[in-house]
Amino acid sequence: MRLEILPVLGIGHVTEGDDLAAVIGTAAPWLRNGDVLVVTSKIVSKAEGRLVDVPADGPERLAARDEVLAGETARVVASRGATRIVQTHHGFVMASAGIDASNVDKTQLVLLPVDPDASARALRDALRERYGLDLAVIISDTMGRPWRNGLTDVALGVAGMPAIRDHRGEVDPYGNELQLTQMAVVDELAGAGELIKGKCDQVPVAVVRGYLPATDLDDAGGARALIRDAAQDLFSLGTAEARAAGLSDAATLTDGPGPTPADLTAVRRAIDAVAGVVAPGTVFTLVDEAEVRAGLVAEMPGWPDGADLLLGSAPTPVEPMGLVRFGADLHRLRVALAAQGVGSTLLPPPPGSPASAALAL
Amino acid sequence: MRLEILPVLGIGHVTEGDDLAAVIGTAAPWLRNGDVLVVTSKIVSKAEGRLVDVPADGPERLAARDEVLAGETARVVASRGATRIVQTHHGFVMASAGIDASNVDKTQLVLLPVDPDASARALRDALRERYGLDLAVIISDTMGRPWRNGLTDVALGVAGMPAIRDHRGEVDPYGNELQLTQMAVVDELAGAGELIKGKCDQVPVAVVRGYLPATDLDDAGGARALIRDAAQDLFSLGTAEARAAGLSDAATLTDGPGPTPADLTAVRRAIDAVAGVVAPGTVFTLVDEAEVRAGLVAEMPGWPDGADLLLGSAPTPVEPMGLVRFGADLHRLRVALAAQGVGSTLLPPPPGSPASAALAL
Repeated sequence: MRLEILPVLGIGHVTEGDDLAAVIGTAAPWLRNGDVLVVTSKIVSKAEGRLVDVPADGPERLAARDEVLAGETARVVASRGATRIVQTHHGFVMASAGIDASNVDKTQLVLLPVDPDASARALRDALRERYGLDLAVIISDTMGRPWRNGLTDVALGVAGMPAIRDHRGEVDPYGNELQLTQMAVVDELAGAGELIKGKCDQVPVAVVRGYLPATDLDDAGGARALIRDAAQDLFSLGTAEARAAGLSDAATLTDGPGPTPADLTAVRRAIDAVAGVVAPGTVFTLVDEAEVRAGLVAEMPGWPDGADLLLGSAPTPVEPMGLVRFGADLHRLRVALAAQGVGSTLLPPPPGSPASAALAL
Repeated sequence: MRLEILPVLGIGHVTEGDDLAAVIGTAAPWLRNGDVLVVTSKIVSKAEGRLVDVPADGPERLAARDEVLAGETARVVASRGATRIVQTHHGFVMASAGIDASNVDKTQLVLLPVDPDASARALRDALRERYGLDLAVIISDTMGRPWRNGLTDVALGVAGMPAIRDHRGEVDPYGNELQLTQMAVVDELAGAGELIKGKCDQVPVAVVRGYLPATDLDDAGGARALIRDAAQDLFSLGTAEARAAGLSDAATLTDGPGPTPADLTAVRRAIDAVAGVVAPGTVFTLVDEAEVRAGLVAEMPGWPDGADLLLGSAPTPVEPMGLVRFGADLHRLRVALAAQGVGSTLLPPPPGSPASAALAL
C-alpha cells in the first residue's frame, strides 16, 4: 500500500465563469476513480466570480478592505493591531475572513467561495458527468492556528468522502478502547496537497491517489462537520477580548446568589484575593456558624432563604467618603466572589449589627 | 514530480531500550536518502522508557493520572469538566499534556519524549551511522485544535529539515509580495504520514518520499521553531479562564489614570455601559470643558496633573446605605472604564461641589 501526491500542471489563470471541471479534466487526463482532488479555494473563488474591486493602494484601499471584511464577518473572535481573527458566515475562524490579495490583480480582493461544500459537490458532479470519473474533491485554503507558528492547508469544502475518520470504539492490541480518535483526514489531505503545490510554482490543484477505494465513494461529504460550535469551543474568544468581557461582567454584575450553596472555601479565597486592595481597617466576616447566621438572617428583611452571610464593616470612624470607598471595596469583593463562581447580593446590615453592609451569598 | 507516502510495516511492539534505528532500518531496508521518516511519538517514548505505572482503574488511577499530568504541565491553558488543555514543558499546547493510555498496557501511561527534537536528531544520526542514510526525521503526535472538530497529526520534533518553509518576500505573477506564507510543512508531512498510518493497522512509521532532495539535507531542524510564545499568542488562555482573569482584574483594580489622556468617547461608552445597573438617581457628570475642569481641579487636593474629571452624585436623600451602594456603583463605572482602556482614581469630591465622589481619569 502507498499513497501518491501528484501535481496538476498546466492550469493557467482562472477567471470568472471558467469551467473548472473542464480546466482540470484537460490538464489532468490521467485522473482515476478514487483520486482525491485537492483544489486551492482561490481558483474556485475566481471561477465563481468571488472578487471585489478595491483601490490599488492608499487609505482608500484600507477602508475598502475593512468594509469587505465586515461583510464577510459573522463575529470578531480576536484582534490585535491590524490583525483580525474572525468567524466567517460559513463558521470558519480565520485571519481576515480568508480574504486574499495574493495571486490576483492589485485592484481586486478574492473572497472565499460562498459555499465551499457546494463548490466541491458541483465539481465532483461535473467531473463524473463529463469524464465518468468518481472522485472526492477537497476545496483547500491556508490557515494559521493558535499556539503554533506557521500555516497549514486545511479543507473548506469536501465532497465524495466524510471529513472525519472516526476510530472511536475501536480497540487497540492492549484492549483499550480508543477515545479521542476522530481524525480530520480531509485537513491532512489538504495539507498533503499543499506539500506538492508549495514545491511547484503556481500549481493550484493536487491529487492524492491511493487513499480512497476506486469504487463506491461515500457521498456523505461536507467540511461543515469540521466546524465546532462556538459554545462548545474552549477558545471561542481571544484572550484579551475574553478578559475585557470579564471586566464588563464585573461592571454589570447582577444581584443574586448562585444556583448552588456557596462553597465557603471559595468565599475565603475571594476575601483573600481583595485583602491587599481594600481600605485598611475594612473587615469582612463570613458568618458560617449556622445558629448565629439563622439568628441574624431572621432579623434581615428580604434576606434570601438559605443564603450564607458575609458582613462588611467600613473602617472607623465612618465618614461619608469612607462609606463610598467601602461600597467600592464591597463591589471588589462581589467581583472576586463571582470569579470564584459565587453569586452575591448587596443588602443593608442586620439591625443592631456593627456592620456597614452585608452580602447574601 | 510526485510524492509518495509509504508505510513501514513489520514494526512490532517497541519496549524500553529498543534501538529504534535498528528496528526501522530492519523493517524498511528500502529507505533512501532524502526520505522523510514520520515516526509516531509513542514508539519513541516507549523506546526511551517514558512510561509511568498507574493503577488499572478506579479513583486511584484518576488520582495517579492527575499527578502525572501535573508533572508534565508548565501551565494550564483551559479546562472544562475533565478536559485539561495545558502547555507542556516543551511549550506544546495540548490536551492532557499528550499523556496517552492507548496502545499501552492498562497499568501504564505514555508520556511525550523529553526532547522530541533531540530524539529526532538521535534517530537521524543513528540511521546515518548505521546505514549511511541521509534522511529527515519527524516525531509526530495527534493533537486537537480550537475551532475545528477532529484531530490531525503534527510534528513534535524534527531533524534534517527546517520546520517551516518561508515564502515571504516571494512575488506572485501579479507583482504582489507574499506576506503570510510561512508554511509549517513538517506539520503537513506529519499529517500526510498519518494518512497511511491510519489506514493500516498498528503502523507507527511512515515515509514521505520525493519531498526533500536526495543530498545536502538542511540540518537546521527543530520543531521548537513551531512553538509560539504565549505573549505573542492571541489565544494564550481559554475563554472562560481569561474571562475569570478579567473578573480578578476588576476585583483588584488599582488606582491611576492610564498612560495616555482619556478618550472621552470611551468614557461615555463606559457610563452608558453601567447606566442600566447603577441605582436609579445616580448621576455621573463628565466635566469636559477645560475651564470648568481647571477651576474644579485647582480646588482638589492631590488631584493628578492633566487629569480629566468625572463627578458622581449619589441618589438623594443621601443615606449611609445609599453611599455604600453609590461606592459600589462607582467601582462598576471604574471597571467599565478599565474595559475601555481608561484608568481612574477614586477621590473625594471637590469642596463645595454637590458630588458625592469624583474620579480622576
